[in-house]
Amino acid sequence: MEMSLFNILDILGTIAFAISGALAAMNRRLDLFGIFIIAFVTAIGGGTLRDVLIGQTPVTWMENLLYIYIIALSAIFAIVFRNKLDYLKKSLFLFDTIGLGVFTITGVETGIQNELAPIISIALGGMTGAFGGVIRDILCNEIPVIFRKAEIYATACFIGGFFFVLMYRYDIPMDIIYVVTSLTVIGIRLLAVKYHITLPHFYPTRKKS
Amino acid sequence: MEMSLFNILDILGTIAFAISGALAAMNRRLDLFGIFIIAFVTAIGGGTLRDVLIGQTPVTWMENLLYIYIIALSAIFAIVFRNKLDYLKKSLFLFDTIGLGVFTITGVETGIQNELAPIISIALGGMTGAFGGVIRDILCNEIPVIFRKAEIYATACFIGGFFFVLMYRYDIPMDIIYVVTSLTVIGIRLLAVKYHITLPHFYPTRKKS
Amino acid sequence: MEMSLFNILDILGTIAFAISGALAAMNRRLDLFGIFIIAFVTAIGGGTLRDVLIGQTPVTWMENLLYIYIIALSAIFAIVFRNKLDYLKKSLFLFDTIGLGVFTITGVETGIQNELAPIISIALGGMTGAFGGVIRDILCNEIPVIFRKAEIYATACFIGGFFFVLMYRYDIPMDIIYVVTSLTVIGIRLLAVKYHITLPHFYPTRKKS
Repeated sequence: MEMSLFNILDILGTIAFAISGALAAMNRRLDLFGIFIIAFVTAIGGGTLRDVLIGQTPVTWMENLLYIYIIALSAIFAIVFRNKLDYLKKSLFLFDTIGLGVFTITGVETGIQNELAPIISIALGGMTGAFGGVIRDILCNEIPVIFRKAEIYATACFIGGFFFVLMYRYDIPMDIIYVVTSLTVIGIRLLAVKYHITLPHFYPTRKKS
Repeated sequence: MEMSLFNILDILGTIAFAISGALAAMNRRLDLFGIFIIAFVTAIGGGTLRDVLIGQTPVTWMENLLYIYIIALSAIFAIVFRNKLDYLKKSLFLFDTIGLGVFTITGVETGIQNELAPIISIALGGMTGAFGGVIRDILCNEIPVIFRKAEIYATACFIGGFFFVLMYRYDIPMDIIYVVTSLTVIGIRLLAVKYHITLPHFYPTRKKS
Repeated sequence: MEMSLFNILDILGTIAFAISGALAAMNRRLDLFGIFIIAFVTAIGGGTLRDVLIGQTPVTWMENLLYIYIIALSAIFAIVFRNKLDYLKKSLFLFDTIGLGVFTITGVETGIQNELAPIISIALGGMTGAFGGVIRDILCNEIPVIFRKAEIYATACFIGGFFFVLMYRYDIPMDIIYVVTSLTVIGIRLLAVKYHITLPHFYPTRKKS
């Protein structure tokens, strides 16, 4: 397998999400098996949902063992360096954000390759980027973070996906599209967290019955 | 696209479920993004599960953008009129019930078109009608309402689905089948709620260990 | 349909999981509908996920009504004998473990038949064996037991699946593979519970923020 920029970014994202999943599992005091499963599910959840919804089966990780090995190594890495990684919480946040940016790309591109409408491709991008974390949170019995905190999370994927589709329409070279899209997602997420930019809420004024 | 009775009912159901999802999300204080996602998932969840299980992919909403637009407009409508809609809680219950009735039809019909056994088609009807609400409740971290309250909910779908299959076997015209099936589901649900008809429970007599 | 050893084991597993699901639902005070649904989902959840991920659709239980009938009868049996079954908690644990062993076989074999890599086939075995219980617990709003207690549960499936793949490579007759694999899974689970063998945990030493 020759490694393109796309592959390298994809592997980076897989590593980042696997580590974030393993850390979340250790925080919830899950056992060794739980750690591997949550690492695995966080890393492949988004892509698996995408593949199942468009009918691209067997899903990607079944046909390319590289993902399994990378995730296992990442989980072992997280276990060994679990105390050091804690000090690196900011780096992890960065890795998680990189994963978000990269997986948005794979989602949008899959939609385009399957000749789906631009808006659907963007939705696939957001799903691929954000859904792994949603499953992780549900399995750890928490309200998914992307709903809880009004953080700019999947929203960044959607904006990045929009730029992807726009650039694709104007025949920009793919490598440039990849870089611009992931940097857009990453930049929006970093800026939103730094400056506490959140999405608006709309509460009914009545008391909750 | 010409609009048949089937399409009109399908759109009505989509609107009703999208509004119910958006209201649930606002009640849970989710942000703008969460509101749209929950509205979307409630409206397309049942049909998506149905499509994935029978292998009809890419799933329906990916190939017909009408659903996306209707759901987005419904969510905006729910946000704008969130206080007025609260007074309309009963109308909403009615809309939700209409959705249940209509989506039962689309589920059963899909099963029949795929030449699945009658009992499987009925199950697909119940799944299509009720599963959107199940996902909505899981994402909002609540026990799904259909399990919680012993309400006649999915049960109404199954009874309606049974009539659908029966009428289909006797070559009743489809438009009549649609109307009778949805009215059956809607009627059973309304009567059950009005007269507090619930399903029986079977508790083990022992204390829970 | 002629009944092979494989079919008999498969039916045994379905019965065991359906009963365990029905009992869990009664313990959570769900209504009649909830009991049937949880029984059904526990019995077919693992196989359904497996079928969807590899693209074998419509999923198995849609094309073979035998499963529906067996599950319905098992749920009725659990309801009728709900108090007696309680005394039989140990037998049930045994049945559940039999189900785990048998469904591991169907998962691994499906992977091999679809020419997936050995490690993927083993993962499919673990998924088929353990996922029904995961869904059951999520729908009952509990943290899945396989993550919670550090019990040797899915781990037993993985070890059994490893032996399956190994024996298959050396052309051992299938019936022997079936028996050895299920007995391995069952034996490991029984011994682990009897001698309180658990998987290790790795906690970060910091306080949870």
